[in-house]
Amino acid sequence: MKQKLVLAYSGGLDTSVAIKWLDEQGYDVIACCLNVGEGKDLERIQQKALKVGAVKSVVIDAVDEFVNDFARYSMQAHTLYEGVYPLVSALSRPLISKKLVEVAQAEGAIAVAHGCTGKGNDQVRFEVSIHALDPSLQIIAPVREWKWSREEEIGYAAQHNIPIPIVQEEPFSIDQNIWGRAIECGILEDPWSEPEEDMWRWSVSPEAAPDQPTYIELTYEKGDIVAIDGKPMSPATVLAHLNKVGGENGIGRLDLVENRYVGMKSRGCYETPGGTIMLKAHRAIESLTLDREVAHLKDSLMPKYAEMVYNGYWWSPERKMMQTMIDESQDVVNGKVRLKLYKGNVIVAGRQSDDSLFDEKIATFEDDAGAYNQKDAEGFIKLNALRLRIAANKNRKLG
Amino acid sequence: MKQKLVLAYSGGLDTSVAIKWLDEQGYDVIACCLNVGEGKDLERIQQKALKVGAVKSVVIDAVDEFVNDFARYSMQAHTLYEGVYPLVSALSRPLISKKLVEVAQAEGAIAVAHGCTGKGNDQVRFEVSIHALDPSLQIIAPVREWKWSREEEIGYAAQHNIPIPIVQEEPFSIDQNIWGRAIECGILEDPWSEPEEDMWRWSVSPEAAPDQPTYIELTYEKGDIVAIDGKPMSPATVLAHLNKVGGENGIGRLDLVENRYVGMKSRGCYETPGGTIMLKAHRAIESLTLDREVAHLKDSLMPKYAEMVYNGYWWSPERKMMQTMIDESQDVVNGKVRLKLYKGNVIVAGRQSDDSLFDEKIATFEDDAGAYNQKDAEGFIKLNALRLRIAANKNRKLG
Amino acid sequence: MKQKLVLAYSGGLDTSVAIKWLDEQGYDVIACCLNVGEGKDLERIQQKALKVGAVKSVVIDAVDEFVNDFARYSMQAHTLYEGVYPLVSALSRPLISKKLVEVAQAEGAIAVAHGCTGKGNDQVRFEVSIHALDPSLQIIAPVREWKWSREEEIGYAAQHNIPIPIVQEEPFSIDQNIWGRAIECGILEDPWSEPEEDMWRWSVSPEAAPDQPTYIELTYEKGDIVAIDGKPMSPATVLAHLNKVGGENGIGRLDLVENRYVGMKSRGCYETPGGTIMLKAHRAIESLTLDREVAHLKDSLMPKYAEMVYNGYWWSPERKMMQTMIDESQDVVNGKVRLKLYKGNVIVAGRQSDDSLFDEKIATFEDDAGAYNQKDAEGFIKLNALRLRIAANKNRKLG
Amino acid sequence: MKQKLVLAYSGGLDTSVAIKWLDEQGYDVIACCLNVGEGKDLERIQQKALKVGAVKSVVIDAVDEFVNDFARYSMQAHTLYEGVYPLVSALSRPLISKKLVEVAQAEGAIAVAHGCTGKGNDQVRFEVSIHALDPSLQIIAPVREWKWSREEEIGYAAQHNIPIPIVQEEPFSIDQNIWGRAIECGILEDPWSEPEEDMWRWSVSPEAAPDQPTYIELTYEKGDIVAIDGKPMSPATVLAHLNKVGGENGIGRLDLVENRYVGMKSRGCYETPGGTIMLKAHRAIESLTLDREVAHLKDSLMPKYAEMVYNGYWWSPERKMMQTMIDESQDVVNGKVRLKLYKGNVIVAGRQSDDSLFDEKIATFEDDAGAYNQKDAEGFIKLNALRLRIAANKNRKLG
Repeated sequence: MKQKLVLAYSGGLDTSVAIKWLDEQGYDVIACCLNVGEGKDLERIQQKALKVGAVKSVVIDAVDEFVNDFARYSMQAHTLYEGVYPLVSALSRPLISKKLVEVAQAEGAIAVAHGCTGKGNDQVRFEVSIHALDPSLQIIAPVREWKWSREEEIGYAAQHNIPIPIVQEEPFSIDQNIWGRAIECGILEDPWSEPEEDMWRWSVSPEAAPDQPTYIELTYEKGDIVAIDGKPMSPATVLAHLNKVGGENGIGRLDLVENRYVGMKSRGCYETPGGTIMLKAHRAIESLTLDREVAHLKDSLMPKYAEMVYNGYWWSPERKMMQTMIDESQDVVNGKVRLKLYKGNVIVAGRQSDDSLFDEKIATFEDDAGAYNQKDAEGFIKLNALRLRIAANKNRKLG
Repeated sequence: MKQKLVLAYSGGLDTSVAIKWLDEQGYDVIACCLNVGEGKDLERIQQKALKVGAVKSVVIDAVDEFVNDFARYSMQAHTLYEGVYPLVSALSRPLISKKLVEVAQAEGAIAVAHGCTGKGNDQVRFEVSIHALDPSLQIIAPVREWKWSREEEIGYAAQHNIPIPIVQEEPFSIDQNIWGRAIECGILEDPWSEPEEDMWRWSVSPEAAPDQPTYIELTYEKGDIVAIDGKPMSPATVLAHLNKVGGENGIGRLDLVENRYVGMKSRGCYETPGGTIMLKAHRAIESLTLDREVAHLKDSLMPKYAEMVYNGYWWSPERKMMQTMIDESQDVVNGKVRLKLYKGNVIVAGRQSDDSLFDEKIATFEDDAGAYNQKDAEGFIKLNALRLRIAANKNRKLG
Repeated sequence: MKQKLVLAYSGGLDTSVAIKWLDEQGYDVIACCLNVGEGKDLERIQQKALKVGAVKSVVIDAVDEFVNDFARYSMQAHTLYEGVYPLVSALSRPLISKKLVEVAQAEGAIAVAHGCTGKGNDQVRFEVSIHALDPSLQIIAPVREWKWSREEEIGYAAQHNIPIPIVQEEPFSIDQNIWGRAIECGILEDPWSEPEEDMWRWSVSPEAAPDQPTYIELTYEKGDIVAIDGKPMSPATVLAHLNKVGGENGIGRLDLVENRYVGMKSRGCYETPGGTIMLKAHRAIESLTLDREVAHLKDSLMPKYAEMVYNGYWWSPERKMMQTMIDESQDVVNGKVRLKLYKGNVIVAGRQSDDSLFDEKIATFEDDAGAYNQKDAEGFIKLNALRLRIAANKNRKLG
Repeated sequence: MKQKLVLAYSGGLDTSVAIKWLDEQGYDVIACCLNVGEGKDLERIQQKALKVGAVKSVVIDAVDEFVNDFARYSMQAHTLYEGVYPLVSALSRPLISKKLVEVAQAEGAIAVAHGCTGKGNDQVRFEVSIHALDPSLQIIAPVREWKWSREEEIGYAAQHNIPIPIVQEEPFSIDQNIWGRAIECGILEDPWSEPEEDMWRWSVSPEAAPDQPTYIELTYEKGDIVAIDGKPMSPATVLAHLNKVGGENGIGRLDLVENRYVGMKSRGCYETPGGTIMLKAHRAIESLTLDREVAHLKDSLMPKYAEMVYNGYWWSPERKMMQTMIDESQDVVNGKVRLKLYKGNVIVAGRQSDDSLFDEKIATFEDDAGAYNQKDAEGFIKLNALRLRIAANKNRKLG
């Protein structure tokens, strides 16, 4: 009897070929396709897996779980890898891995497989997650193993009656989830070249966006958006809505050269309309409600948090540990943010909160009702400068 | 004989009144006005100081020094206070303080004075700098001491023949230098209110910007822009040029609630068209030329660097120490960045460098000429996950 | 009717004089004396306060609370200020402040007073804590205000029938709690001078300690010592026991120059026999049970945590936030540590744990049962070095 | 004609067997033995290499370079891996690698080999260094490749006339250099077991050390010890002297469980008598001469610096970048430290410096000559607590 294996199945050529190839390696392949908001035709994919040789085909809708337990945490931590990239695939991989492990355990499978190559970050994210969640599972990476050229792969597919896309697939490598869309490869490999317009799918160009701005109002409770323009929404609905309105206003395109965990630089383009809006707005509501040192502590840890997630350590104890700190900070993050969206710009047009620490009476230069005594500034400055005064005096004597 | 005092003189009402007030306190006041790129009429200011009672009036053009030794360092460190604010006044204060101390030492003055109130950051920046540079100098802050209402101040001015602005001065508190323009107070005190359009002076609104994008090409040598569109320029000319082209394209407006060093939150609006362009472009050229860990180290230290400068510790040993590290990193930051400027957006349209560490042959998913062996990824992942595998096995046995 | 004020009362000259002085300023003084393990005669102190003029005298035993909620957290975070100083007064001040505020609120007092001078850290710790816990309370610092010489103070005491110590008090400034004993001033002001032997009270010198080592075994549950040599003990009893056995073995003396928060350097000597043992042993049990990255994250944050506590920010939101992270890490810190105590040395003689992540089969150079494949190291190294290889190749081509 | 390969040769069984094995793989083996202070008989080793089959045998004395360019930097950065381990092998590997590369380049070799197994850190340190210094060189790790049991290895040696140690070699794996001695394996694999006394070679036990303390005085210039007890010495002589006197006084033994870079925990014992003394004394001279924030910045970066070196990234750009910062800090680290060495204890008995920032007049609680105004403390505290007061008031209104 053959051993069972669970394959992360996307419905594309690589993982379809992998079903056959794994079958030839002696496994009963259980295809597992997750919806994390990329708008796939799950029904069609489920059938296709069976058609090309899977013994079982599972589809799982995990959009809500993805937004609640992954995208949301990342947003609250303001994770921008290398200062600019709001993560995309790095957020879905740990969830997909968790589901693959659950299916493997439920089905009694001994191995898990994924369709990543040996050059990217995703292989690491999948495998580190699976090792952490169930180290007894073997991991197989067919694409990394077979090392075929595209022609060889198509030849294998033809030979095994695996449907080959009639039109050439996109000249890019694409991954997407409800948080964002990632585009790599093809002509992007020259970092001097500008992305072509038809590469983008979730956003119009700033030039093509409306000539009138769109205003929206976000309501926050404990760091989460719970309503848009006063209308209550679930987290996933909020994100979908912001993707739509953001994309319409030319928001969230990103084009960068990043450093992969495996040691090379790569060019990537990303669309995260909703995420871009949420990150900007969240900082705005925090600017009013978070204590200064709490905010600075968050900022100082952010690069490390983003790196952890980017590198694939979502299920590590150090990330969970850091998350407890982010959680602790969000209790007071309540209120409203008003945004103006216009041709690629996300402009904060207002913020207010019952938890606001902004005190107009203290901050204004005009009013001085006693809450703040300007005289105190003298002592504050004198003692803060004391170490510098002592050092300067010392140098003076020596010099 | 009266003791000499050097006053940081701006030509405005506060420091004009301060000249008289300090004269009454028994000082011979030497007015000192610096040009750091705010476009002041230095000749007129110099004369005005003498007219209102200064015994001497000094004007110093320090634009080049400001750009070379202050704005440039900050840009290379990517300093954004609280993640978004590229600093403005915090960069000029240490330079103005240095000049005040130099004039005081040359003139034999025993004290230095500035026109800041007791609620802001600038008093700290001036005084900490002066204490560090010459702790033997006394420091006087007339505005903080006299505690007058605006009416009392105008009454004092009228009584002493100090010119009072006929039209009401701006309903804001403004500070500017060639790196940026800072606007506080007035209607801005309500963080829910949107800034009024006529508050902005260096930039048009994104809506009012041209319908066609502007492309520019920046040439970098050791982290500095040395040419724009192939035309060599000095650092100050680069910044002036980018301010102009940025402002025309609606770039560099910022509206935020920040945490002052003296402990309160305040609302500030800022215009930094050139700075906004430079910060984005510098990250782009670094993305190609900096080693990953060097870039990450820079990013992890940035919040601390920005906080130091914001709080007024430019002349501290810890800032100098941190700067040596930034300097060390910039040798390889050479090449070109092409930017598309459009209605508030700064879009990186290309980057190239002879020092590029981006290796197309390694990064591409297609080619596999041996520079990178995909097999290596297995070992890389296995050992990176080892600690998680051991822990998961341990939990398994226990659970 | 006079307003009520709560004074932190120690029974010494300064705070006894303060009772009278505050009475003269127009307050009804409620003396409040806390026991945090310094071994004071609370009964005598309570009576003395009334004798010198307090309208009420409160004594509070807070040793258990101090150990459970303050010393214990600090120990688990491994807080060593400036790398060496395990904190002493900085740990008790926030607790004393909390109790003063509670008494003030219960008694309807409008102010709180303490006996600290204006040069040390303790004034900051008290006042920042009180401001954070109840900003409506006024704070008075009599010693800082009256600025008397010692002679003037004794004169005042004599005049008001306040008992003056017959024998000269110690030529040092002492503060102690069950976690440690702090000694400042006097001959210590010359950092070249060695402390005199009779200055120490909790520990013998290493020379005077027994010639035979003492072995002890500590049992940990979730980061806390719950038994010594198999005998269950409460946290405070554990600390008292370790102070005794540590002090007998010459352990825990410290002599250093530290940087005070108010900007000056100062010389301090400290005795923390139990704390020194606990810090060393806790690292040992963590070395076996904590994940590497969790341990490194703790280490990287420790200097900031220690600085926060040292500076007086115990009751700040950033400390609470950081503490959630420490708490999260301690669940697995279970097991036993065996120590050898000998003439000033704390030597780890063994550690074991059911939660140990140390895997003899993997770590040993001899055995190779398949848990670890040495081949994996190749890929691990190759990819970790990839960025350096690419950079070196680039330099090669350029050079 | 055979290709040349340079082998890091120690004279032990593993690398002697490797010479033969590499010869069989088709290389002309050039043995290269470095003296980094471990007291090897270089002459004998050089001959032995030739005897077992090397075509050339090179010995290099690199003690001074090791101390000057590696141990010294690490000491100034206070690098303690995981808070306690002062590094040993991690410091010599980058130097040995550099020499191997130099020899390889001079001899026209195409490969470099080392005798490390696949489980430890040293393989990483060697290979990452070599990749960084000359990525064109191939790297071979014979011991990792042949995967023999000890019996198989001895069999191979016997068969090829390679001398087999008559007495069983030590039941430990040893590495040493002038900075320290590292001991792993054998009975140490049980972390509950205490090390046996005869395992230690550089130090007596505290029990066996003299009953009288030894006092020494160290003179510092720019962070380096330039004289002991007034007698000028070179850096290597200083270290040798301190190893001797430290070892005689039972100083510098360490027994710990550490986290290896390859992902496992391991038990290690270390002897670093001189290093232990130097690290403690260096902190003492810095405590007097370094600015507070410089010292805290150093402390906050230390864990990262130590991790870099431990993991093998000595030749990385991020380490060089960090080193510039350490260098910048050491200019003022001048003066004297007096130490008392006694039965395992290193006790600071005094420190003095012309660059001291300790100001007795300011620090003392008694004197108040105007350098420090106690009144300033009020303003300092009030503004530092302002954010907490505002937050507490806000909570009050809400609660």
